[in-house]
Amino acid sequence: MNTFQEFAAAYLPVLEKAMQEAITPPDPRLALHYDIMAYHLGWRDEHLRPTRAPAGKRVRPLLCLLACEAVGGTATDALPAAVAVELLHNFSLIHDDIEDNSPTRRHRPTVWKLWGIPQAINVGDGMFTLARRALHALAQRHPPERVLHAFRLFDDACVALTEGQHLDMLFENRLNVSVDDYLYMVRGKTTALLAASVTLGALLGGADEATQDHYFTFGQNLGLAFQIVDDILGIWGEEAKTGKSAASDILSKKKTLPVLYGLNHPEVGQALRALYAGPPFEDAEVAQVLNLLDKANARAYAQQLAESYHRRAIAALDATGIRSSAQDILRAFADALLHRDT
Amino acid sequence: MNTFQEFAAAYLPVLEKAMQEAITPPDPRLALHYDIMAYHLGWRDEHLRPTRAPAGKRVRPLLCLLACEAVGGTATDALPAAVAVELLHNFSLIHDDIEDNSPTRRHRPTVWKLWGIPQAINVGDGMFTLARRALHALAQRHPPERVLHAFRLFDDACVALTEGQHLDMLFENRLNVSVDDYLYMVRGKTTALLAASVTLGALLGGADEATQDHYFTFGQNLGLAFQIVDDILGIWGEEAKTGKSAASDILSKKKTLPVLYGLNHPEVGQALRALYAGPPFEDAEVAQVLNLLDKANARAYAQQLAESYHRRAIAALDATGIRSSAQDILRAFADALLHRDT
Repeated sequence: MNTFQEFAAAYLPVLEKAMQEAITPPDPRLALHYDIMAYHLGWRDEHLRPTRAPAGKRVRPLLCLLACEAVGGTATDALPAAVAVELLHNFSLIHDDIEDNSPTRRHRPTVWKLWGIPQAINVGDGMFTLARRALHALAQRHPPERVLHAFRLFDDACVALTEGQHLDMLFENRLNVSVDDYLYMVRGKTTALLAASVTLGALLGGADEATQDHYFTFGQNLGLAFQIVDDILGIWGEEAKTGKSAASDILSKKKTLPVLYGLNHPEVGQALRALYAGPPFEDAEVAQVLNLLDKANARAYAQQLAESYHRRAIAALDATGIRSSAQDILRAFADALLHRDT
Repeated sequence: MNTFQEFAAAYLPVLEKAMQEAITPPDPRLALHYDIMAYHLGWRDEHLRPTRAPAGKRVRPLLCLLACEAVGGTATDALPAAVAVELLHNFSLIHDDIEDNSPTRRHRPTVWKLWGIPQAINVGDGMFTLARRALHALAQRHPPERVLHAFRLFDDACVALTEGQHLDMLFENRLNVSVDDYLYMVRGKTTALLAASVTLGALLGGADEATQDHYFTFGQNLGLAFQIVDDILGIWGEEAKTGKSAASDILSKKKTLPVLYGLNHPEVGQALRALYAGPPFEDAEVAQVLNLLDKANARAYAQQLAESYHRRAIAALDATGIRSSAQDILRAFADALLHRDT
């Protein structure tokens, strides 16, 4: 297998089956609780009828399995961890959608829209705890010390995830957020789980601590690069490719990296802060903001920062000294993330 | 130490200190996230100023420490588990309060009332994950196999808790709930964590599997007895003692055990179902319901069921063959729960 797509085609069926086993009601009275989870994961439609394709790209579990193979392990050695990181990611989406008041995700109504906020909170809690319980299957293939180490990595990522989400919500209502604050938030909200995914893969593939650390660094920098590219596309992405309206993150006043760079800029900061403190934007204000960001070279700044995180991610892969086809796929994946336009 | 009160007085300071260590922000930017948790736990008031007394009775962690001592362990061997069960319990309260739309808890505004639903959901998630992370401290005093066993007990309780909460919300909107369905719900929502608390104590005190099972049975039956006594007090408790208005659970149409027994009763069931399917109750309907429950002997039925669970709880303690002062406190605690009037 030479590409991420080939790897995904080979392992997605195994992964989906393992996830379905983790999401199985122990009693028929609990059918709805588990069916709502199956809906969110794309296995059922909103009438709870089976569907054909799962929702979501399963990026984190695939990176976990890839890292396991990269260091010389067999992907299935990391399968319970792959299940756990994907369920954890989806738990966080269920709760994020309530917190952000989002009516749709992946072109379908969100869980809270269909079943109400109380059940959606609890279904999220249920998936959170099933994620962690899935990790116990590791004990069948790994010594207890290693399983405990896996739990530690996973739990640390969970703590960082909730901390990052707190800051994300807190920063929404503040203008005095620095670029450093923002990157600290992204480390929790976006990168902690990516870093845990590849580190778990390396650990369960039998890598030593130094190698695990390199994969952690890879995942963390990959996550930062990914988020910044996302931020750039949210402002300057082509409508036809991103599927979102042009400058959508400006229109919604979202404080992503280029905007925060502008808000803190010695020349354009004051004008930008005045705009962001004012009423909701219409087209004229969006054009003004884009103009000010241009003046500050915000796009180039963000692009350079993304590239520098990407370089650090690749350097971490190189530092492992590992050469394998799975390692090549990880590298190509990082390159593709940097150059994506969608 | 011969009483629960003496045991609590001795260990609460140690417990509170360990909980505070588990709830410590790693960065000043996260102060609010952790301060909200401290508010819920009673360490801060709503202006986030330090308070004198914690909120809550810390029953579960104290039972955990007692079970550890009962089997011959040192209470501090179980301290991280005691912290974890109390944090887990409080996470579930934070989310329950949102799900039930409750404005107050322990005579103070609930977290969502003060900081909004989005932050409250996330603060609950944060406490949930810190509960699990607290368990890692067990590795300093116990072999990895035992720590993993503790994780397993804890995670199973978390799964049961979310399943029970799902059923509790689901049953609110249904009249065709059997007594068996109700007890199945209580096993998840109320008893799973109580049973896990004492089983964790026994495990970490060094008890063998058979003894752990007896403590599990003790906790489960104690929880069932506790819930049914609670249900009885919610209908027939004395206002002056419970601090709630008389028959408050009837007025709110809460479907507790005596009501479900009545709804399923061959003689009074039809009349009761008609009342519960109708408009909100006023005093006249409350009196009618109380009359019908009397006719069905619902109170005596519930009382007998509570006593039978209490007997099974005591029998499980006896089956351990253990005699110790901590064991005597556990037994006295169970007796007091059955005979409480508040």
